[in-house]
Amino acid sequence: MTEPSWLTPQEADVWAKYRRLRRELHRAQERQLLRDSGLSAADYALLAPLSESADGVLRARDLGAEVDWERSRLSHQISRMEKRGLVTREACAEDARGSMVRLTPKGRQAIEEAAPRHADTVRRLFFDPFTAQEVRLFGEFLDRVLAQVEAEALDTA
Amino acid sequence: MTEPSWLTPQEADVWAKYRRLRRELHRAQERQLLRDSGLSAADYALLAPLSESADGVLRARDLGAEVDWERSRLSHQISRMEKRGLVTREACAEDARGSMVRLTPKGRQAIEEAAPRHADTVRRLFFDPFTAQEVRLFGEFLDRVLAQVEAEALDTA
Repeated sequence: MTEPSWLTPQEADVWAKYRRLRRELHRAQERQLLRDSGLSAADYALLAPLSESADGVLRARDLGAEVDWERSRLSHQISRMEKRGLVTREACAEDARGSMVRLTPKGRQAIEEAAPRHADTVRRLFFDPFTAQEVRLFGEFLDRVLAQVEAEALDTA
Repeated sequence: MTEPSWLTPQEADVWAKYRRLRRELHRAQERQLLRDSGLSAADYALLAPLSESADGVLRARDLGAEVDWERSRLSHQISRMEKRGLVTREACAEDARGSMVRLTPKGRQAIEEAAPRHADTVRRLFFDPFTAQEVRLFGEFLDRVLAQVEAEALDTA
């Protein structure tokens, strides 16, 4: 391994901005969701993939991979949502130790009501400051970092 | 409130990329930290602000604000790090109900050893794909979204 090299002042500045954006955008979305829909960001993070899945049901394991949470955090969050009638847990037919998470009609209604305002917030915060051309360029920047991250993941797997 | 408007297909694509980048970059950093330094991303997230603070000590409340975690998550993580000798908890002189978190010499050594390789990973993944001019432009993009997010936060505060 070669000697590690530090960030330039400009890189350190952009890196700090990226981290601040990640945090502030998450907070802004959380506020909006709670205010407009009474959902937490954690609720939304689970309801969204469930509502997009066939029949509104996913293995707990696949749902966990989707949000990249530790098992205990996922399990607590599912329990909270179960109590509020948004999802139910079911045994997994193919895997005796696995469980499935199913969206209830109430859960589907909650996500369907929340989604348009959530999308509106994303558009307003993340896209309104840019022209269509800039959005394309921003997408290209993200692609380049993603390619780098994914190449390295393969390399060290 | 006006009718919410959906994202264009291009916006939806860039938004999905941003979320994928956020997740994959976090995973890549987590793998690197664990492999090179035996630290988790959660360890690093707390050690970094402590090491930058005066005397290596912060109120638990301020440390929590820094990482934006729920109180119970912060408390569990501090307990784990206390057991490994990376930090200690102290009573807060100014606030009887508050506590302080202090970096131990072992904790300081851990972050000082981990930081250069961590910076190297950020540089390689996040900055190597760009020219200095592109880094500047990327920083400007981030600034514009941040300005939008922060203006709205003030608006609704």
